[in-house]
Amino acid sequence: MSHWPSIAAEKRQRQLKSIPQDWLVSPPPDSTLDVTGFPETCGLLNPQDIEITNASTDVLLEKLASGEWTSVDVTTAFYKRAIIAHQLVNCLTEIFVDRALARAAELDDHLKRTGKVVGPLHGLPISLKDQLCMKGLETTMGYVSWIGQYAEKNAVLVDILLECGAVPFVRTNIPQTLMWGETYNYIFGRTTNPYNRTLTPSGSSGGEGALIALKGSPLGVGSDIGGSIRGPSAFCGLYGLRPSYGRVPYCGAVNSLEGQDSVLSVFGPMANSIGGVKVFMKAVVDTKPWLKDPLAVRKKWDEDEYNLVDHGSGKNLCFGIIWDDGHVVPHPPIRRALEMTKTALEKAGHKVVDWKPIKHGSITEATMNIFIAGSTADFMMATSTTGEPILSTMELDSAVTPIRTVRSGGITAYELWQVQKLRRDTRKEYLDHWEATASATGTGRPVDAIICPVAPYTAFPHGKGMYPNYTMVWNGLDYPASVFPVTTVDPILDAKKHRHDFYDVLDKLIYQMYDPETFKNAPVGLQLVGRTLEEEAVIKMTEIVDAALAAAKPDCK
Amino acid sequence: MSHWPSIAAEKRQRQLKSIPQDWLVSPPPDSTLDVTGFPETCGLLNPQDIEITNASTDVLLEKLASGEWTSVDVTTAFYKRAIIAHQLVNCLTEIFVDRALARAAELDDHLKRTGKVVGPLHGLPISLKDQLCMKGLETTMGYVSWIGQYAEKNAVLVDILLECGAVPFVRTNIPQTLMWGETYNYIFGRTTNPYNRTLTPSGSSGGEGALIALKGSPLGVGSDIGGSIRGPSAFCGLYGLRPSYGRVPYCGAVNSLEGQDSVLSVFGPMANSIGGVKVFMKAVVDTKPWLKDPLAVRKKWDEDEYNLVDHGSGKNLCFGIIWDDGHVVPHPPIRRALEMTKTALEKAGHKVVDWKPIKHGSITEATMNIFIAGSTADFMMATSTTGEPILSTMELDSAVTPIRTVRSGGITAYELWQVQKLRRDTRKEYLDHWEATASATGTGRPVDAIICPVAPYTAFPHGKGMYPNYTMVWNGLDYPASVFPVTTVDPILDAKKHRHDFYDVLDKLIYQMYDPETFKNAPVGLQLVGRTLEEEAVIKMTEIVDAALAAAKPDCK
Repeated sequence: MSHWPSIAAEKRQRQLKSIPQDWLVSPPPDSTLDVTGFPETCGLLNPQDIEITNASTDVLLEKLASGEWTSVDVTTAFYKRAIIAHQLVNCLTEIFVDRALARAAELDDHLKRTGKVVGPLHGLPISLKDQLCMKGLETTMGYVSWIGQYAEKNAVLVDILLECGAVPFVRTNIPQTLMWGETYNYIFGRTTNPYNRTLTPSGSSGGEGALIALKGSPLGVGSDIGGSIRGPSAFCGLYGLRPSYGRVPYCGAVNSLEGQDSVLSVFGPMANSIGGVKVFMKAVVDTKPWLKDPLAVRKKWDEDEYNLVDHGSGKNLCFGIIWDDGHVVPHPPIRRALEMTKTALEKAGHKVVDWKPIKHGSITEATMNIFIAGSTADFMMATSTTGEPILSTMELDSAVTPIRTVRSGGITAYELWQVQKLRRDTRKEYLDHWEATASATGTGRPVDAIICPVAPYTAFPHGKGMYPNYTMVWNGLDYPASVFPVTTVDPILDAKKHRHDFYDVLDKLIYQMYDPETFKNAPVGLQLVGRTLEEEAVIKMTEIVDAALAAAKPDCK
Repeated sequence: MSHWPSIAAEKRQRQLKSIPQDWLVSPPPDSTLDVTGFPETCGLLNPQDIEITNASTDVLLEKLASGEWTSVDVTTAFYKRAIIAHQLVNCLTEIFVDRALARAAELDDHLKRTGKVVGPLHGLPISLKDQLCMKGLETTMGYVSWIGQYAEKNAVLVDILLECGAVPFVRTNIPQTLMWGETYNYIFGRTTNPYNRTLTPSGSSGGEGALIALKGSPLGVGSDIGGSIRGPSAFCGLYGLRPSYGRVPYCGAVNSLEGQDSVLSVFGPMANSIGGVKVFMKAVVDTKPWLKDPLAVRKKWDEDEYNLVDHGSGKNLCFGIIWDDGHVVPHPPIRRALEMTKTALEKAGHKVVDWKPIKHGSITEATMNIFIAGSTADFMMATSTTGEPILSTMELDSAVTPIRTVRSGGITAYELWQVQKLRRDTRKEYLDHWEATASATGTGRPVDAIICPVAPYTAFPHGKGMYPNYTMVWNGLDYPASVFPVTTVDPILDAKKHRHDFYDVLDKLIYQMYDPETFKNAPVGLQLVGRTLEEEAVIKMTEIVDAALAAAKPDCK
């Protein structure tokens, strides 16, 4: 038997030591479920720290650029709040305070000397999912077997963020293998949801979700191959964007299922405002990432697309809405959020029509079959040094059962091609389906975007995830999808409704899972889905939806 | 034993019957090698036919749009010349005169009625490689087993060409499986090179190459996964473009290795002028193919990129030149063409520096390994109905040996991922290598484009192809590459030079293959290679090179 538990324990010790002693706080007991109020009351943050960490990305960038706030001040404030967050929900992996502050000081110095910012993200601290290698730092991605692997260079996206003037300041927790909608691994353990710590922040970018929800970071980078940006964004009350393949560079980051060229994982932003999403995307694309990453698409930031030139300039848009995908009916809070959004959009002069979700089952099945074509061999290889177990569940009790499971024997390359061919054909069917809606919108255009659930549920108790298809279908189709927050679970408004008929056993199980008190206070977010490589329009339409929701219910946003 | 030979013979009979009786000519005997002069002297073409078929694409489109020439006249002229070409070099598969002329008449009628063209290709006949399905026509792709498969709908690109006003009028020959640099299959037999019929027109778009060289088509569509547009363009003295993945829609066409998502085959134009290449690319991209093909990249035609905004507006460009790739030294005519091009470019005020071809062997090996991961199973499946043999050589004698060969047993999906990962990493190395040339060009920019051979040889005797890497490396890297003609083999200028040292046995074999008399009169073309998705710039730079060559040697072009 290998000594993997002791290797993991030693790494955790080093992580603990990387936290400045005077930033240690006394977190509330586990019985305190909602910890969102704790950072501002625990005493570690001074009034300026609180003002800084509550500011929107736009305000932060403005004050950093003008020199009103130094990057050292801003980075210190967010770092302190990130460390508080970590003590509440266990969201960080790599902590490197001195390095981040040195970088911030350099930027301050540059601005002072030249009067100019380094780039559009000048001085802004940015948190990074634990895949984004930084030269000289360990990159474990939650694998005990990868402890001691120090990056020889930065991931391309890290270099680009540096070029934009950002301050990478923490890395964040993920599930082992990344292929889970929760966040747990044998090194760093489990990340919990700050709105209710018995619930998951989702995954695999769960560390980001929990951290940003506690305002421990103004802007974070997650990755998404089946919903890993959108789950945590929705479950933690944030904005997020899953861009199309290749819009944001992936080169030089570590990953699972490497070499799988079909359904690609993508990096994208997570933030407390849609403004944060936009500023990240525009900044990254403006650096011409295709000159640094061979898989990055040569497509400039398109201001016409952002101004919705292809969508009637954003007047009288027509949205398709998915109430349920024909497989699993969403819980009452999701239904209410969809209704709120429809009402708000109609009030703002837009149209909302029902969207028929064709072939979502086939698309997700093909996508999943592509993943499992070689995933077992991939996981076995990744864990081979220590022989650490491969997780087979995210349940609280059994998560540490040390069994090396084998989930699939894999298939041949030719068999994989057949799955990929099936998926390609279904993508064509879906594209034609979308184009055909032009006859039903009344705008002369096809539906401008789809509004739909992120999952059939909000944040759920650890280990209880069952159905990734509301997000994974868009990975299979490669449609960009944003997440925006709508409301929170309210046991009165979201009472359980009696249902007799179910699509199948899974639909029934997920129905039975709902209990208003268990899910109380969980954020409810929705997706806005656009056309492949149409990130600019997706962002602008999300701004429109966000404004419509704010206008319709000003006291709620 | 199956009856595949009789099925193939019956199809050939039907093909023969599809030729109008009065378009049958008496072709010269096989001993007449160069048949390029035959079409204009055989008596079938009248003076207007000759004027039309000798006109450039630009002139044709202008006269078609003004109504000076009707589409019926133009289509008839090209059809007659195509049928003559077919009797000389066996370049056609599907022949459908009535259908094409009916379409042409409709377009003429439209122009007459409305005074407007249907689109930018109004009235222009276009030839299509035998992968491009047309509703109601058989699509065999050279497989006897596919005889009788009548397409239920058009390939997306066919629909787009129709939308642009084009007249698809013939389909052209290919090798069985498409995975050969020559053109032979059990249905339609072998296509030969009109400059010397003992030589190959290359492949797999060899039918297109031979047809367009004889001016039997003003514009053709080929496909390219390892050089299949560029080989025939160069061997037949044409212009051609291998665009990046997804720039031209592929959806709805038949293909080999379907579902292979990594090194994608692409469609692209072949023509007698670079103007023909440009008009095709702009017309297709302007129709927004991403709304019809889920794999088509949402990237508009970029006039800034065409105007070389990223390349100093085209003044004082710096080209990298590959004299040899470090594996196989090109034959003397290729060397001379490179020297001519360098001299011409320098005379026009541009700079030419040596390009270091790093890792070309690894890139091509990875690309080839991706193809063979499942190709045997693919070929076996495609030929399963009749049990026709799978070709193992393009040699004249043994090509018809009816043996079902098995070339590779295939690999697992996980093994395929490892190859794909290796390729991805090498693409990154090559990108960095290109960017690093900025320090050596003197322009402040990296090398603007690479000039290089298309193959180590010009058109060669049937069955003697040995080395696809000069083209395949760019498929592996996904760099767009054009072909432009430079000269023809001249036994005096291109005498065999004595060599002592060879890279390896293959290099020696290819050296030994050269004999000035055998290759006499074969066209010599070169490639111009640009950055991924930079088709606009590649076209403009090819115009610049073409003009420089014309200016430097006006009597030769």
